[in-house]
Amino acid sequence: MQFEITKNTITDIKELISSNNNAAISLMLKELHYADIAEILDELNFDDAIYIFKLLDSEKTSDILTELDDDIRDKILQELSPKEIAEEIDELETDDAADIIADLSEEQKEKVIAHIEDVEHAKDIVDLLRYDEDTAGGIMGKELIKVYEDWSMFTCIREMRKQAESIDKVHTVYVIDNDEILKGRLSLKSMLTTSTKTPIKEIYNDFIISVKVDDKDEDVAQVMQKYDLVVVPVVDEMGRLVGKITIDDVVDIIKEEADKDYQMAAGLSEDVEADDTIPQLVRGRLPWLVLGLLGSLGAVTIMQNFQDIMANPQYKALFFFTPLIAAVAGNVGVQSSAIIVQGLANNNIKGSIWKRLLKEVSISLINGILLSILIIIFGEIVHYDFIFTLAVSVSLISVIIIASLIGTFVPLILDKRNIDPALATGPFITTSNDIFGILIFFNIAKFILGF
Amino acid sequence: MQFEITKNTITDIKELISSNNNAAISLMLKELHYADIAEILDELNFDDAIYIFKLLDSEKTSDILTELDDDIRDKILQELSPKEIAEEIDELETDDAADIIADLSEEQKEKVIAHIEDVEHAKDIVDLLRYDEDTAGGIMGKELIKVYEDWSMFTCIREMRKQAESIDKVHTVYVIDNDEILKGRLSLKSMLTTSTKTPIKEIYNDFIISVKVDDKDEDVAQVMQKYDLVVVPVVDEMGRLVGKITIDDVVDIIKEEADKDYQMAAGLSEDVEADDTIPQLVRGRLPWLVLGLLGSLGAVTIMQNFQDIMANPQYKALFFFTPLIAAVAGNVGVQSSAIIVQGLANNNIKGSIWKRLLKEVSISLINGILLSILIIIFGEIVHYDFIFTLAVSVSLISVIIIASLIGTFVPLILDKRNIDPALATGPFITTSNDIFGILIFFNIAKFILGF
Repeated sequence: MQFEITKNTITDIKELISSNNNAAISLMLKELHYADIAEILDELNFDDAIYIFKLLDSEKTSDILTELDDDIRDKILQELSPKEIAEEIDELETDDAADIIADLSEEQKEKVIAHIEDVEHAKDIVDLLRYDEDTAGGIMGKELIKVYEDWSMFTCIREMRKQAESIDKVHTVYVIDNDEILKGRLSLKSMLTTSTKTPIKEIYNDFIISVKVDDKDEDVAQVMQKYDLVVVPVVDEMGRLVGKITIDDVVDIIKEEADKDYQMAAGLSEDVEADDTIPQLVRGRLPWLVLGLLGSLGAVTIMQNFQDIMANPQYKALFFFTPLIAAVAGNVGVQSSAIIVQGLANNNIKGSIWKRLLKEVSISLINGILLSILIIIFGEIVHYDFIFTLAVSVSLISVIIIASLIGTFVPLILDKRNIDPALATGPFITTSNDIFGILIFFNIAKFILGF
Repeated sequence: MQFEITKNTITDIKELISSNNNAAISLMLKELHYADIAEILDELNFDDAIYIFKLLDSEKTSDILTELDDDIRDKILQELSPKEIAEEIDELETDDAADIIADLSEEQKEKVIAHIEDVEHAKDIVDLLRYDEDTAGGIMGKELIKVYEDWSMFTCIREMRKQAESIDKVHTVYVIDNDEILKGRLSLKSMLTTSTKTPIKEIYNDFIISVKVDDKDEDVAQVMQKYDLVVVPVVDEMGRLVGKITIDDVVDIIKEEADKDYQMAAGLSEDVEADDTIPQLVRGRLPWLVLGLLGSLGAVTIMQNFQDIMANPQYKALFFFTPLIAAVAGNVGVQSSAIIVQGLANNNIKGSIWKRLLKEVSISLINGILLSILIIIFGEIVHYDFIFTLAVSVSLISVIIIASLIGTFVPLILDKRNIDPALATGPFITTSNDIFGILIFFNIAKFILGF
């Protein structure tokens, strides 16, 4: 009952388009879910995509619009008149509608809103446009079924029927008082199992978790995850019910947040995808590469200061170890910062700073000593002086300790100052650790070897 | 209406426990959501946690069990008799119940199952235990409301009331035929807006997306995300309705998948968290560090072969650039692999291999040339010979191209062979790129500078 888009699907569609066989196209697309049609349109060139888009009725195209890739959606919207866009908007739920309108130019916005037929719908959308994109208000929808606590179950079901006709999916029935204050919810179960004469007051569930309009979207995601909610009501500063957020919107936020952290750790400065254009991909990759390069050039300068060692036949091998020191410092830094960034994202960083410091130093000491054993074995095999490998090992252990402390505390400090801690992962931490690593390495080696 | 756990909460509870003030504890916990109580228990020491656990009734403790950290849950279960565990199980939905039972020893399993009071419930759980943990069957629950297509709405509502009494949350009403084959669903809206005499056959929605019992859990997550589903029915090989999966379980899978990829990229070999013990954290970090070290020792050996250059006053500066080359190679490799791994996870890697190859080479060329300009400027400032900086630049560009090809194609090849492509991120790619980078660097420099 699911549909998989194959190369054949796309070739078939292209052929049907070039032969203008509209009847066959309609027949083919009729049985498809809008998310599948959106996937097909994303694959086609723009002319073909708009051809198909104009062939479908607005009930289907409106849903397709919400699923399309941003760039192709923008292009399609440019092809439509304000009236046509308004027709699409009429079919959409308020949250999706507001998302689309928010992307239009100020001038287009007004025109489109003026063309929306259902005035209540237009009002709701205009209301939603006022909220910040990344707050509960910015992702909520206005569609909800609400009943007053004073009603009987009979009135309630009658009114619900009226309300339900204009709402696509009914998730939860909310109970409010005469001031529109959210009081609780009515479960489908209680509706199915209670007599129609029972007053709502007696049967509604007053244990209800809600979010505030200005809560951050990530916090909404965390609340819904923690309490396993499928839908959460949104209240304003006075506790009045103003909207609801469904889990599918929040899933996207959870996914985006996780993807963003991952991309930062991987040194991508923009949200790039494999099928983006070359300029987009260059823009996404270049900034961190430049930063990394500048850091490494710093390391070059440091090494220049130690270049006399190259004349020393015993100690010149120190230069063979600089990539090793930089790599270990980088790896340790990324590991430590990843643990903290993920801990912060999942809200489980607790305990005192000193405990954490002690813990990081212990872990680094253990790892450092174990890695040093490997270096000493390697030194024996290639016949380095023992004092030389010892110097390398001691430097390595120091570098590991410093790198892990930087990796741990930089994201913590950023978070305290309300800067995204994920900034401190990937190339940023690698680069700073490169420089510190090489600096520490040569200085400790100098101290031990006494050159 | 949400609850935030503060240090005070924990101190208060500890005090109440030490003074055995059970009444006050019960009063305090009465109003709390089970997810909040679980969070409190996770914070307490084990004796205090079990004290509180035994104070609460099984309706609440069963839900708490599903939310607890694994280690504390296991400890609590060890303190309970099979009969007590069975009482908890009796209160749980089948999917959560099966998860808990699956963690018990074979011997305990049988005893607990024998003690479950509701035989139907026990049968459902035993059924679920048969499925692989990471398939649709392994995450689905057996609780669902189903009606036969032959029924009238009146019969339907009467039967639904019966079924609903034993089910906590009603998500969707499924329509099946006499062979239990899934035919479609009945929307709450149609139930609210149709007369009771209408036969189900005439009003049910036959457009329904389902998954198969042996579909992988990640695929289920992708389907639910794509089609914005809150709940999806699970069918067996014959199309018979056997269970349902709700989005809250899938959110956990989406989050875990994203976290896992991130941890791999960050060089963590196990799912470690900031508050894990030191041995756990060492185990999570050490393997990749060792691998990275071995790679770097390989690079040390390569450089030993080029050590004669150190005697050349003009070219010895090549050794100052080895950490730079290794760092750039590493960063480029991680960027490329991250884009592919994320693309594979989101199912949007399309197009031919040759196109991708050409694209990667183009991006690398652009980035390489831009970075080379910086190196040439740096070279002018510190008065290197132009031919020297040119040699470094050309090597850098070659290294970037090779590193990005390795970063792009290794995960693609792993994926083709059904190995998790995320394995090819982080230290693995950094390490192999380190070695290749240094090898290419010295050989190209040798060729250009002619030493």
